[in-house]
Amino acid sequence: MNIAVLGTGMVGRAVAARLHELGHTVVVGTRDPGATLARTEPDQMGNPPYAVWQEAHRGIDLATFAGAAEVADLVVNASSGSVTFDVLRAAGAENLAGKVLLDIANPLDFSAGFPPTLSVKDTDSLAEQVQRAYPEVRVVKALNTLNADLMVEPKSLGASSTVFVSGEDPSAKAEVVALLESFGHDDVIDLGGIETARGTEMLLPLWLRLMGALGTPHFNIKVVR
Amino acid sequence: MNIAVLGTGMVGRAVAARLHELGHTVVVGTRDPGATLARTEPDQMGNPPYAVWQEAHRGIDLATFAGAAEVADLVVNASSGSVTFDVLRAAGAENLAGKVLLDIANPLDFSAGFPPTLSVKDTDSLAEQVQRAYPEVRVVKALNTLNADLMVEPKSLGASSTVFVSGEDPSAKAEVVALLESFGHDDVIDLGGIETARGTEMLLPLWLRLMGALGTPHFNIKVVR
Repeated sequence: MNIAVLGTGMVGRAVAARLHELGHTVVVGTRDPGATLARTEPDQMGNPPYAVWQEAHRGIDLATFAGAAEVADLVVNASSGSVTFDVLRAAGAENLAGKVLLDIANPLDFSAGFPPTLSVKDTDSLAEQVQRAYPEVRVVKALNTLNADLMVEPKSLGASSTVFVSGEDPSAKAEVVALLESFGHDDVIDLGGIETARGTEMLLPLWLRLMGALGTPHFNIKVVR
Repeated sequence: MNIAVLGTGMVGRAVAARLHELGHTVVVGTRDPGATLARTEPDQMGNPPYAVWQEAHRGIDLATFAGAAEVADLVVNASSGSVTFDVLRAAGAENLAGKVLLDIANPLDFSAGFPPTLSVKDTDSLAEQVQRAYPEVRVVKALNTLNADLMVEPKSLGASSTVFVSGEDPSAKAEVVALLESFGHDDVIDLGGIETARGTEMLLPLWLRLMGALGTPHFNIKVVR
């Protein structure tokens, strides 16, 4: 499949690398490819510069958000929730229309420090905002409940754990479930419509505190039933 | 131990019955014991009248909130979040001071229908509000993340699952952890201070949607790490 991954951070890199490894044609989207490749310092999260990562992942092209989305069959929103609407605007509604958008972003607000709060919650969600803003896009919320490494290599936990999908379009969800299963996920729960993304986005406050208590982001939840 | 269970609903009954079974002296608190015993209809959740339940649970006394709290070493807040402050006011600060309060309540707001939203979240929590209002009470948030039956009989799931404690007082948390372990919980994560209750209270939106997707409240999460 031709897949655009919007975002060059930890999540975008992890997802792009795994999709490429699985045989997909992957283009990573960024605002300004020249500027992204010109950076020589680690980003604020301590990730190495994109150019360094790209050296180790030849075969994954870098393009503008619009250029990446235009040629894609499926688009992954791997941007931060705080810039998701800027990124989608840059990608262009015409390049997204009709496509599945796997939305991994969380609406985290770091303006008051750590732990972040949620800029939207409980009576709305980022996923619903995206779906409302882009009614022709087939939005599926998934993978926003776990660390980037575990999103794409869940078996590294050594035990089954759970991920979730939320969305209005059953065939779009089926496409995303197939991708998740190709990553190694063996317990995908379909929560229902896009409204149910409120539940998974609101897991983040517990996730953040668990990371603090456990001293690692290398964990996930399993729904035992 | 002498334990007061404030609340006569599903949670209060489940916790009271289990504590009594484990050999504790349990008094259930209610606003007006005469009125509680006089009811002959199931409550709005479909639970049988308290008098019917009491017949099957002889040895568990019913008293006013204040009467129950007064004689207790440890107090369980098994009330609905919407009435928690009324219940604690009725119990009386003087009857709660210095005691461990195991707070199970969730700040669910059903005023706009189902699923409920949270009346407090993200930048505050019900547990923190209780701790601020009653600084001499040793508040421990726990058990608010799963169904009443599973709170007290977690092994009925057939696999290990996780519960959480949040609170400022290490010895109070240790007392609650010992109680949880006596119920059968084998994976209790101490999230940290009472602020971390924001995380577990905000799990409810996902819990509610999981109940919808799975068609049962008989599930819990396991933190796989």
